Amino acid sequence: MTCLKKKNPTSGEHLTLLYQKMLLLGFGYCTVHLGKPEPLDLHLGMFLPTLLNQANQEQMDRFFMPSWNLEIIGTYAQTEMGHGTHLRGLETTATYDPATQEFVLNSPTVSSIKWWPGGLGKTSNHAIVLAQLYTQGNCHGLHAFIVPIRDMNTHVPLPGIVVGDIGPKFGFDEIDNGYLKMENVRIPRENMLMKYAKVEPDGTYKKPPSAKLTYGTMVFIRSMIVGESARALSKASTIAIRYSAVRHQSEIRPGEPEPQILDFQTQQYKLFPLLATAYAFIFVGQYMKDTYSRISGDINQGDFSELPELHALSAGLKAFTTWTANAAIEVCRMSCGGHGYSRSSGLPDLYVNFTPTCTYEGENTVMMLQTARYLVKSYQQAKAGQQLSGIVSYLNETDHRRVQPQPVSARPTVVDINDLASLVEIYKLRAAILVGMAAKSIQQELQHRKNQADAWNNSAIDLVKASDAHCHYVVVKLFTDKLGEIGDTAVHSVVSSLALLYALHGITVNSGDFLQISVRIKELLSQLRPNAVALVDSFDIHNKKLNSVLGRYDGNVYENMFEWARRSPLNATEVSQMFSCGVKEI
Amino acid sequence: MTCLKKKNPTSGEHLTLLYQKMLLLGFGYCTVHLGKPEPLDLHLGMFLPTLLNQANQEQMDRFFMPSWNLEIIGTYAQTEMGHGTHLRGLETTATYDPATQEFVLNSPTVSSIKWWPGGLGKTSNHAIVLAQLYTQGNCHGLHAFIVPIRDMNTHVPLPGIVVGDIGPKFGFDEIDNGYLKMENVRIPRENMLMKYAKVEPDGTYKKPPSAKLTYGTMVFIRSMIVGESARALSKASTIAIRYSAVRHQSEIRPGEPEPQILDFQTQQYKLFPLLATAYAFIFVGQYMKDTYSRISGDINQGDFSELPELHALSAGLKAFTTWTANAAIEVCRMSCGGHGYSRSSGLPDLYVNFTPTCTYEGENTVMMLQTARYLVKSYQQAKAGQQLSGIVSYLNETDHRRVQPQPVSARPTVVDINDLASLVEIYKLRAAILVGMAAKSIQQELQHRKNQADAWNNSAIDLVKASDAHCHYVVVKLFTDKLGEIGDTAVHSVVSSLALLYALHGITVNSGDFLQISVRIKELLSQLRPNAVALVDSFDIHNKKLNSVLGRYDGNVYENMFEWARRSPLNATEVSQMFSCGVKEI
Repeated sequence: MTCLKKKNPTSGEHLTLLYQKMLLLGFGYCTVHLGKPEPLDLHLGMFLPTLLNQANQEQMDRFFMPSWNLEIIGTYAQTEMGHGTHLRGLETTATYDPATQEFVLNSPTVSSIKWWPGGLGKTSNHAIVLAQLYTQGNCHGLHAFIVPIRDMNTHVPLPGIVVGDIGPKFGFDEIDNGYLKMENVRIPRENMLMKYAKVEPDGTYKKPPSAKLTYGTMVFIRSMIVGESARALSKASTIAIRYSAVRHQSEIRPGEPEPQILDFQTQQYKLFPLLATAYAFIFVGQYMKDTYSRISGDINQGDFSELPELHALSAGLKAFTTWTANAAIEVCRMSCGGHGYSRSSGLPDLYVNFTPTCTYEGENTVMMLQTARYLVKSYQQAKAGQQLSGIVSYLNETDHRRVQPQPVSARPTVVDINDLASLVEIYKLRAAILVGMAAKSIQQELQHRKNQADAWNNSAIDLVKASDAHCHYVVVKLFTDKLGEIGDTAVHSVVSSLALLYALHGITVNSGDFLQISVRIKELLSQLRPNAVALVDSFDIHNKKLNSVLGRYDGNVYENMFEWARRSPLNATEVSQMFSCGVKEI
Repeated sequence: MTCLKKKNPTSGEHLTLLYQKMLLLGFGYCTVHLGKPEPLDLHLGMFLPTLLNQANQEQMDRFFMPSWNLEIIGTYAQTEMGHGTHLRGLETTATYDPATQEFVLNSPTVSSIKWWPGGLGKTSNHAIVLAQLYTQGNCHGLHAFIVPIRDMNTHVPLPGIVVGDIGPKFGFDEIDNGYLKMENVRIPRENMLMKYAKVEPDGTYKKPPSAKLTYGTMVFIRSMIVGESARALSKASTIAIRYSAVRHQSEIRPGEPEPQILDFQTQQYKLFPLLATAYAFIFVGQYMKDTYSRISGDINQGDFSELPELHALSAGLKAFTTWTANAAIEVCRMSCGGHGYSRSSGLPDLYVNFTPTCTYEGENTVMMLQTARYLVKSYQQAKAGQQLSGIVSYLNETDHRRVQPQPVSARPTVVDINDLASLVEIYKLRAAILVGMAAKSIQQELQHRKNQADAWNNSAIDLVKASDAHCHYVVVKLFTDKLGEIGDTAVHSVVSSLALLYALHGITVNSGDFLQISVRIKELLSQLRPNAVALVDSFDIHNKKLNSVLGRYDGNVYENMFEWARRSPLNATEVSQMFSCGVKEI
């Protein structure tokens, strides 16, 4: 925080520009989602950016500097108890009263109570509230309003406001995620964020110039989450692989010293595919960041042509990478045995703080279905004779569509499993087949006299599978492309092994047990074993950021575990205070 | 506790018998592992039972009644910082000194410090310590010793004892899991548990009559864990399915009211296979309990013939069911969206308290490999012409071994996917093939001039897969057998759908995407939808035990979520005390 709270800011305008630049560099989002969660995360990551993006000049003058100076502390109140991802379902109302030129905010039902915003419970004195705007008898959908919620002097909730903490969660203990119930709360007309949409004093509503303007932020945040999956998985694999090199256990050869557990084939089979995945996701994260940057440049110049593809890609990859990393962190934790369960390992905290990414910024299954919608639409365009460009161009290859729906893996003989280009083709083929199958399922449902909506729902499993296959193809392709950029022969060789392991492991997981591939996978495990610790060291995660006794760079695990334990709060006294209270008697 | 602490126990002997009966009924174990963990769990579930099983009469007289009356509070200190599942690696020593007729206990290294025992940190004043017994210059392996660790009056650690809490964990917050470091701690010779093995006053060591005696307890506890997987998964699926019937979201048909999220095919695809798994595991849990009971009867009459099979079965099914239930609880949690992340859902607590079952009482991968050892041995016996009996008798069918290693799924045409008996055959075939492949892998490794140990390690992935396939077969078979016991036609029909879904889902997960099966799975989902809530209601888990706002029997989720939140500790004051401390300034 220190760096933010300048003693004598020279000018508001200067700061605004600076902050805008920081946001473009991902600062706001990273503050929110990296490292330890803090109650001010939403203020910095959502409240200030929303002001910047949606407040008009008068509102900037009124709110920005006080917020910058932490007099106003704000949060972003969108999600309600009854609705999250499905925004149109939100129930909070803001009804315009032309008599007093005020909006009247209400939480009409229990399920409409705002729920989850970070810092809302106890920290914030303002909230940007998303509500259904009613004026002149009509509803104009969701708009954003600045609502003061606590007295600026006493911090006591204002009249009509019921606000508090929502109680303990899986993680994010440091955050007062809150609820907010409003009963006829009046705010001036000028507190609706009016850079784009407007309500005139007489209540006349003016539409925003483009609905696509908020689209970009969503795409940006989802793109950033892909990189976050990479970071979380690099941390988890660093901890598990380093510790597996420290831990000795059991015997492989009778009478010989206990081996490092990293020498057990089963341990390698748990961890090396995840290590390969971490590298894959780092490259995909970089690609998403670069692509966002490029396309948002185009958008600023009025070219929206690539936005649908970017939207589909960011939604699908957000879901694909967070699901994968989420499960992988737990595999890493359990691969550390009992000590993975101790918070000294850092893995429990990593997991509980990462796992919400599967739900927030768009629930993963919904995200997969959004990507599927784009894929099916593209498929139908290609079928209708249009030439597709970009990452879905593989759907142009009409011969794929003639292929009978059967697992790609049923004809492994034609594939060279040591050739990545060949494997990319397999993943491409699988994606094409599964997109085709999903489209066909919708078609079949429609023939059974079902309407489009039911046909879609009855094909949802296939649609999610198609999205998943598409994303998997994109990841394998990007990983393979990356290899072309590596000049150093030794590095190329190791990273190639990782890419090959990633691709082959994905095939066995998705297509059953194939002797040929299993044997090759085992060879790759032995090949990677000598470099495994170096490969995680090269993530270069500082001990402090790693925050794990098991994953320490120096490997002094056991001594430090003892030290860590001695500092346990329960050890503050040699005999628990309870003892003299008679608790011994139970 | 009340029921245990009788005011005037009539006789120690009477109580001993009573407690022994309770233990046989699973009381000790259930106290430890069901419901909320408590610091006395190890006293009740391990310390007292170990006394009963391994103390001689003199020791019973000295320790049992004081322990029963909670004057002595004990724990069971086996695991060390450096060794868990691999017991032979434990480093703590107990060296007999004939001069004083005492054992001298030592923790010779940092990694030898006892680590994890529940209640050790602050609660216990005694511990049963497992240590390598040295006498007359020889090591005789692990034996159990009763070690006083804290003063009976002041509760202060005794000389030579360093004891404390190991610090915060993923869960089990209520438990003071502890460490224990011993430096020349002397205990009388009579504190070694000597019902079986003995050390004479002069230091002469007398072996126990049979090494198999401790074997039984391990098998018992693992068998019980199978039932625990069933209970945990029933709870999780009850919460997720009930809440999915309460939650309305998005639209399937435009303009119509928001559907229950249980009507989305993707939600059914997440939850119904897990519901089917919960039923499967309940039947398997019952089977394990019955089988244990039957075989332990035989053992008491000196018949150890079925013990190896029971050992292999309990090890494998412990791993198979805990891994499955563990992942499934998280799927249930995430299927509840954001609210699953709140501890009001009950799912985070359920997960953190269940997940250690994958590690304790034998780490799962090690368990799978133990089962594999039995399977490969059986396979080799069958190949050598022996006729196998029991659950591995399918390895007798020599034609399986002629089958080429390829996925069972490659020939789905010959299988009637609506006929459970036919699916059981598929699972059996798969198990036979994978056991054969693992055996073949070992053979091939041996031909490459590797020794037996390296051949085993280089085949470990195949061995785990073989065990997994074997367990999966057992579960499908037991589920199918159970159907034969159901007389009521309507119940039979619903449970048949569950069994079919369980079997088919397992095939798609393990063998890629097969159109034929996917279509049938979708039909089963629609078929189960009307009964889904009733099927979890029939688990009959009391609201209090379920401890979940989302999974309430009455479905009043949102009102009660608000009530639960209002009781959050942070809401004790309207304005946080921090506010007046100047924290607002950060």
